Amino acid sequence: MVQSLLYISQLKFTLRKHSKLETTILHAKKPLVVSSTNIANGSQMASSGLEWKVNVPVEALVNEPAVAKRVYTQLQGLILKILMHIARFLEKARNVATSDPRKVIHGVKVGMALSLVSLFYYMRPLYDSVGGNAMWAVMTVVVASEYSVGATIAKAFNRVSATFLAGSIGVGVHWIANQCGEELKPVILQASVTILAAAATFSRFIPSVKARFDYGVMIFILTFSFVSVSGYRVEKLLELARDRVSTIAIGTSICIFTSMLLYPVWAGKELHNLICKNLERLADSLDGCVTEYFKNNEENISRKHEGYKFVLNSKAGEEAMANMARWEPAHGRFRFRHPWKQYLKVGATMRSCAYCIETLSGFINSEVQAPELLKKHMKEVCMKLSSSSSNVLKELAITTKTMTKSAKTQFFVQEMNFAVQSFQNAFNNLSKQAFLTSEHEEDDEKTAQGAKKVPIMAIFPIATMATLLIEITERVESIVIEVENMAAQAEFEVVNH
Amino acid sequence: MVQSLLYISQLKFTLRKHSKLETTILHAKKPLVVSSTNIANGSQMASSGLEWKVNVPVEALVNEPAVAKRVYTQLQGLILKILMHIARFLEKARNVATSDPRKVIHGVKVGMALSLVSLFYYMRPLYDSVGGNAMWAVMTVVVASEYSVGATIAKAFNRVSATFLAGSIGVGVHWIANQCGEELKPVILQASVTILAAAATFSRFIPSVKARFDYGVMIFILTFSFVSVSGYRVEKLLELARDRVSTIAIGTSICIFTSMLLYPVWAGKELHNLICKNLERLADSLDGCVTEYFKNNEENISRKHEGYKFVLNSKAGEEAMANMARWEPAHGRFRFRHPWKQYLKVGATMRSCAYCIETLSGFINSEVQAPELLKKHMKEVCMKLSSSSSNVLKELAITTKTMTKSAKTQFFVQEMNFAVQSFQNAFNNLSKQAFLTSEHEEDDEKTAQGAKKVPIMAIFPIATMATLLIEITERVESIVIEVENMAAQAEFEVVNH
Repeated sequence: MVQSLLYISQLKFTLRKHSKLETTILHAKKPLVVSSTNIANGSQMASSGLEWKVNVPVEALVNEPAVAKRVYTQLQGLILKILMHIARFLEKARNVATSDPRKVIHGVKVGMALSLVSLFYYMRPLYDSVGGNAMWAVMTVVVASEYSVGATIAKAFNRVSATFLAGSIGVGVHWIANQCGEELKPVILQASVTILAAAATFSRFIPSVKARFDYGVMIFILTFSFVSVSGYRVEKLLELARDRVSTIAIGTSICIFTSMLLYPVWAGKELHNLICKNLERLADSLDGCVTEYFKNNEENISRKHEGYKFVLNSKAGEEAMANMARWEPAHGRFRFRHPWKQYLKVGATMRSCAYCIETLSGFINSEVQAPELLKKHMKEVCMKLSSSSSNVLKELAITTKTMTKSAKTQFFVQEMNFAVQSFQNAFNNLSKQAFLTSEHEEDDEKTAQGAKKVPIMAIFPIATMATLLIEITERVESIVIEVENMAAQAEFEVVNH
Repeated sequence: MVQSLLYISQLKFTLRKHSKLETTILHAKKPLVVSSTNIANGSQMASSGLEWKVNVPVEALVNEPAVAKRVYTQLQGLILKILMHIARFLEKARNVATSDPRKVIHGVKVGMALSLVSLFYYMRPLYDSVGGNAMWAVMTVVVASEYSVGATIAKAFNRVSATFLAGSIGVGVHWIANQCGEELKPVILQASVTILAAAATFSRFIPSVKARFDYGVMIFILTFSFVSVSGYRVEKLLELARDRVSTIAIGTSICIFTSMLLYPVWAGKELHNLICKNLERLADSLDGCVTEYFKNNEENISRKHEGYKFVLNSKAGEEAMANMARWEPAHGRFRFRHPWKQYLKVGATMRSCAYCIETLSGFINSEVQAPELLKKHMKEVCMKLSSSSSNVLKELAITTKTMTKSAKTQFFVQEMNFAVQSFQNAFNNLSKQAFLTSEHEEDDEKTAQGAKKVPIMAIFPIATMATLLIEITERVESIVIEVENMAAQAEFEVVNH
């Protein structure tokens, strides 16, 4: 589809080139005729000999067929531009579809749910049973069909409970208004709508309401306005309410069943996978950064270490998923009250580690580099420290993925602590070999002990690298603690390999 | 209100304590009666002299009045709990309201817009003019009333254009279906709904559609389903469409006018203020972190330096505001095509700087501290470097706030670069005074030149501090570049002080 469109646009472009050529020929014809009269009038201009100036009256060229041609050309250009835009859009759509085919499946699911609910219009017994209010079922399906099961359930719950609540209050207010007589009735109704709508709208700014009941509050205002205002005309208020509740129930059940039964996307599972993936990304980034720092300049720069950037930006996504996941019933290996909030804590410690890696990666291509001698000396211990930290992260990713408690984690943590120790020893040994000095002093000067002098500024990059790596190990340890809390709360299985 | 509720809950609590006391007395009465018979049977138990064991048959205590009491007490507890919840909720609401009174005003605005639109129900000429479809106007007001003007306009535009587009396509599909005969008609309608709904739902995953037309696509699906499905019954399709478009137009215009004319909240202005505020926060955090590091332990720990955390988490908010701001007409000092996208770039460089400050703040309370001698030596230059960086940030905040190009910025940048230079010189001087050595060697040992020895690990924190501060100055310079781009694109005024 995209290719055929691109082909069409190429064809159009060729056509346009041809039509331009034609216009040029057409323009060229006219000037020659006009210029021949001009030469007679301006012969003194020609007297200079070799130089000829041909005065072309521009208006003369623009005759009607040429204008039509130009408009035609511009139109062609416009169409071409639009086609290019469409082609680019389809290209983007194809990328989205190939990167996650479940998004296409979601589209098909919504289409199916809608065609299912629209049967209420086509089948007379169904249509009559809901008193012609089938519209509300269609509306419910359209607005409550969300990508993940949790979001669908949240919207469905919000819609049903808010409609019910607002309907009851609306009927109550109506009854009160009726008792007060025909004169006061519109005043009471109007005032109640204004006050309740204002209060409900304000409540959407309260974080706890916003996170869970934002949609419900909107539906509450909507339903309450409908009931209390339209009741002024429609006499069969309770019947209307009954029909609306039943159509919404039909709509929500269709939504929930299609989202849960056909290729369900569970927000909880997505969050779980995101946390696993981010742990792996952190491990890879850490390895990648340190390898990048110590490798020779000739080698290619890999982009593998940029995974931490995903971690930096995953806060909003994690929170949204955790909010949806709490609505989901037990699925797969997750029970109903799985500790989703704990996942957010793990996410926060991971981001804190990612900040450090971001700072570290800033030094990789820094201009101030440690001298080769120091680099060589430190390469092994630095690599060891970073790989022991990333081993811990990888092990955490595995335990999270398999939902098991493994004794290996503590082993890797101890190995990491041991690496920190030997790292510090290596620095102490370094200072036995080399004394640091100002860069203004002579490089070959030797101290009394015969140790070699190194400019003090030269040790800065490596000292920073060291401090950052040690800081990262500390932050990795806080990830370990939060993951262990998660394992305890979610009752991960204990496995002894 | 909150206080009176709290008072009520305290009162209830007192009551509950009283009723507990009463129950205890009631319980106490009974055992004495029962125990007197027990003593007669178990006199050998009393023979041990001083120790008395009273056997109380528990069942005997639970007579019917006691059960009623207990239920009453539990009910009281439950009510108290609910009241406490409500009180806490109202407390939260009050905090939201006092921290930003515009949110209360927004609630009132929505209430007013709703009461305005509900006049269509009460006034017969207005009601008749829209053929009883006033419901759609109410619905439009409820769903399109957003906090900021930009979001309201975006929703209103999406709603009107999507309704119009879907209506036209729906009528077209209807016409085609009618040509194909009564047999094929439902099949064609059903298929068109399914296919279009699936395609439209999928398109919501494409980032460019999601950012600007998410709501529009939903309304498109909704309207198309209504038109093509309900058309099977309702014959006056065009009339219905006309009424719907007119009611939606009424609803959207009420929304847009209330949001623009009464205390408007402009997303663009909010974004602009957020960027200014975040620049100030970064400056304060940087100053705070360095001051914190060098101060004596006795002083109180201030929380002022934690402003960078807001910057870390402002990505989602900035993007949402920039998305809304592009819909807004010229307002205040901002023209229609103000470079809102450039604000996102400034935000990104600010976050990059915040990551560094986050890492820096990790070292403030770190266990490994530089020796006092080094700290004293470095305090002045570090403070100077950080204050020169924060001066640049503060100047950027001022130029952004006043929307002027000031020559001072470049002056402060030069001052910052000068501070970096003198910072490096200070380190070179330091190495003349003190040679670094392993911590295992004697501290009082002197080298041939008579310089003092410092353990090598001791210089690590200060070296890291130095490298981070220099890295921060680099990142501040990239903020300067992006702010200058913004100033150029937004045509800030040139002011010479």
